[in-house]
Amino acid sequence: MRARDLLADFPVVGLDSPVIDVARLLADQDLPGLIVIGDDGTPFTILPGTQVLRLAVPGYCVDDPALARVVDEAHADAFLRALDGRTVRDALPEQPRELPVTDPGATVLELAALMARTRSPLVAVVDDGRLLGAVTLQALLDRMLAA
Amino acid sequence: MRARDLLADFPVVGLDSPVIDVARLLADQDLPGLIVIGDDGTPFTILPGTQVLRLAVPGYCVDDPALARVVDEAHADAFLRALDGRTVRDALPEQPRELPVTDPGATVLELAALMARTRSPLVAVVDDGRLLGAVTLQALLDRMLAA
Repeated sequence: MRARDLLADFPVVGLDSPVIDVARLLADQDLPGLIVIGDDGTPFTILPGTQVLRLAVPGYCVDDPALARVVDEAHADAFLRALDGRTVRDALPEQPRELPVTDPGATVLELAALMARTRSPLVAVVDDGRLLGAVTLQALLDRMLAA
Repeated sequence: MRARDLLADFPVVGLDSPVIDVARLLADQDLPGLIVIGDDGTPFTILPGTQVLRLAVPGYCVDDPALARVVDEAHADAFLRALDGRTVRDALPEQPRELPVTDPGATVLELAALMARTRSPLVAVVDDGRLLGAVTLQALLDRMLAA
């Protein structure tokens, strides 16, 4: 079994997508994460769900739990509204060294090791720079356990 | 809105649960991760889905993509079968400094920051050492976007 046997179409977002729309897409479709397409049409980065959340949370709250704690409940409830027209490009933190991206020939072991190492429940499958789709943790486990 | 308004019952596993059963639970119930209960009945650790996978993948494959690549397809397909009676306790890698655990009074901002920082789509809510339930990324986003 190879990545090409497990991949499925997956929604993508652009660098100029508003963060609020991206959060809504993740929530509405119950996705494990999202693929961000760069200006050249190839995957720019892969964001696990928790890192989509990171786009929306003020950096000082991510870095320091004590600072997140002093924000009162009313302001905390409203933090998503503060996003306004903020785009993925504006909010994207420094990107990791290794992206969860592989080729269609990757084995299930390679896929599993890549997900574990990059902590991403989503791997983009790319052939010659072209995005073919994605393999999710769920799809990988379902197929491996059924085998 | 506080953690207590968002939490739900969540399946837990023990340190002596076989890894294969844990993987099956994650897949069958489409969970974002699992709470591991220690010998004293309190949460020992929280494993995001990708880190449940890590229990099953040989360490050398997680650490080195080149080594994962040389395992042929037939052996890669069979790697889950190699788990046999291996338990969570046997397989658990070194644990992170900060666990995604909070108290019932945490705000949505604190929950979001904690998920982003620990890269866990699942936060255990504990009161006085007692596990009350968990807040998932999905539940948090759904409620925040509906507000």
